Amino acid sequence: MAVFKSIEWLHDDNAIRVLDQSILPGKVEYKICRTAADSEAAIRDMVVRGAPLIGVTAAYGLVLAAFQEQAEDIQAVQQAVQAADALLRTSRPTAVNLFWALDEMARRVQEIVRERAERQPVTTAGEYRTVFLQCAHQLAAEDVAINKAIGTAAMALMPKDKVTFIHHCNTGALATVDYGTALGVIRMAHESALDVHVFVDETRPRLQGARLTCWELQQQGISHQLIVDGASAHVMQTFDVDMCVVGCDRVAANGDVANKIGTCNLATVATANGVPFYVAAPLSTIDLDTACGAAIEIEERAAEEVTIIDGAQVAPDATQVYNPAFDVTSAELVTAIITERGVVYPPFEESLRKIKAADAGGDCE
Amino acid sequence: MAVFKSIEWLHDDNAIRVLDQSILPGKVEYKICRTAADSEAAIRDMVVRGAPLIGVTAAYGLVLAAFQEQAEDIQAVQQAVQAADALLRTSRPTAVNLFWALDEMARRVQEIVRERAERQPVTTAGEYRTVFLQCAHQLAAEDVAINKAIGTAAMALMPKDKVTFIHHCNTGALATVDYGTALGVIRMAHESALDVHVFVDETRPRLQGARLTCWELQQQGISHQLIVDGASAHVMQTFDVDMCVVGCDRVAANGDVANKIGTCNLATVATANGVPFYVAAPLSTIDLDTACGAAIEIEERAAEEVTIIDGAQVAPDATQVYNPAFDVTSAELVTAIITERGVVYPPFEESLRKIKAADAGGDCE
Repeated sequence: MAVFKSIEWLHDDNAIRVLDQSILPGKVEYKICRTAADSEAAIRDMVVRGAPLIGVTAAYGLVLAAFQEQAEDIQAVQQAVQAADALLRTSRPTAVNLFWALDEMARRVQEIVRERAERQPVTTAGEYRTVFLQCAHQLAAEDVAINKAIGTAAMALMPKDKVTFIHHCNTGALATVDYGTALGVIRMAHESALDVHVFVDETRPRLQGARLTCWELQQQGISHQLIVDGASAHVMQTFDVDMCVVGCDRVAANGDVANKIGTCNLATVATANGVPFYVAAPLSTIDLDTACGAAIEIEERAAEEVTIIDGAQVAPDATQVYNPAFDVTSAELVTAIITERGVVYPPFEESLRKIKAADAGGDCE
Repeated sequence: MAVFKSIEWLHDDNAIRVLDQSILPGKVEYKICRTAADSEAAIRDMVVRGAPLIGVTAAYGLVLAAFQEQAEDIQAVQQAVQAADALLRTSRPTAVNLFWALDEMARRVQEIVRERAERQPVTTAGEYRTVFLQCAHQLAAEDVAINKAIGTAAMALMPKDKVTFIHHCNTGALATVDYGTALGVIRMAHESALDVHVFVDETRPRLQGARLTCWELQQQGISHQLIVDGASAHVMQTFDVDMCVVGCDRVAANGDVANKIGTCNLATVATANGVPFYVAAPLSTIDLDTACGAAIEIEERAAEEVTIIDGAQVAPDATQVYNPAFDVTSAELVTAIITERGVVYPPFEESLRKIKAADAGGDCE
């Protein structure tokens, strides 16, 4: 486990404690969320960030609503949860995982209530609250398990003694409930006693690499050096870089990968320099309904993300900016996709369909 | 001419006026240099930057020393100039152009004195000072003429009505005496009434694109948008980008190009996306004595350039940084090199030797 916790349920308080990522790395402070509104604010103000963590924070937001509603009848709790659900959906409207987690909570709670209907029916508000808590704990635990499985799968790709990575953005224990996706791969290599070194893309414009990944690697005692995003070709030509590993926001059916802006540049440079380019992708991010990357809409964000850094204006007044938040990396630049069910190779159209089918099959068994 | 002047000789004051680039774009202020020490400080403190401008500022520094020495004998002026020369060489020891300009001044002054020895000998300190001024003016005028010739040569590469560029770093009137190299190409297109748009790489770590190139394009009324360095692949895949154009620090005999960090990433991405990649290179930057890029030593600069932006620390305390100032772009990624004597195509080994020979021949005629 990490030496820090991005999110934690406080049993004695019926509250969650989240690490305030908006002020890292300058300050390490935790915030307590006691209500759904607190959770909503934590997501909106980017106290928590990273798709999996946003999802789980929202899930716990429903739990908090259930616990805050003191009434003794289930219906009142239900209503409070519904109101919280509506509120939480407004916190970060582009975060797909947010909606997934809230839908999943509703589905799982219903399922448990239905399953228990005969042998151990949920009759009191207290029992009902506990079901919500159980489901949120489940989501959180699954996220950790998936990340560790991705890390384990990736070990097949590692050289023998020593491995040097380039990593983009932040995909670690801070972006998830714990462990991380691409940084989880790096961490697994480190915990497996490989001699690990990481070149950390600073990841403009929001500098998640500089601010978060460096902090996280420092906490975990993993050797690393920060680089500007434009330095990766020179790094590959100067050092023995074994692989690039990144996370992803979405993988299309053909293997095209949408991820933080700068990912496609890194993948292009890796391919041109013969460095393997791996994408760590929980199966939930593989979207077979999206045929290819061209179908993925790219969010454009505010100019100020580029022109103002920590309050300092670095471009002239009124400078026009083009600030896409994500880019699409063509499948042909991706060496392999690392999932919790193993490493998937091209042709991705086939391999991704197969692994998703196996996963769905596994769920039904 | 630009609406601003990076450097200007003040006839009435025997002084130079330089635009203080260290505080752009927040403030537009000029500094007056009256002594060689002022010139040295302007170079050292990066009030002036860009290889050609540094060279010319140093050249005028010798002139200032000559004018400051009030003695009426030539020898006293000579000694003052020699002391100034030694001082100026310490201002920025990695700037090759600095040494070139100082050597060139010495050579030209000597040559004029020798040439005039019979018909119009230089006998007074006043005349001697004027020779220095004449040589510095010559260097400055040649820089402008070379840049304009590069711009003119580049017109053969332009589409008919409309041209969209990606540009890296700052290579404009601010980096030179006037007009600029790669930005001179863009400016010539604009002045030729083409419909120009420029995507401006912000150019981490020092953000010369955001701070200087955006300011310069704004002054010149050229349409542009600032992007983070990692966005170029996405920009090429989203818009019709006609070409990338960059400057260079040095071109090796085989066409390998040393330039600001991030150049090789951009060239790699351009090549992968079928976008022509052009290097604007005065013939003086083509170094036939350097066989290839591997022979060029890459300066590593301070960690703080990456971790601290305008006083704000963006990475944890004690973060390790790898901060190469330059990278080498392999010749095979370069579509053509634009010189003041025309556009040079691969195979560069042959074409560069030929154009340098023609240039040397021209000098001897």
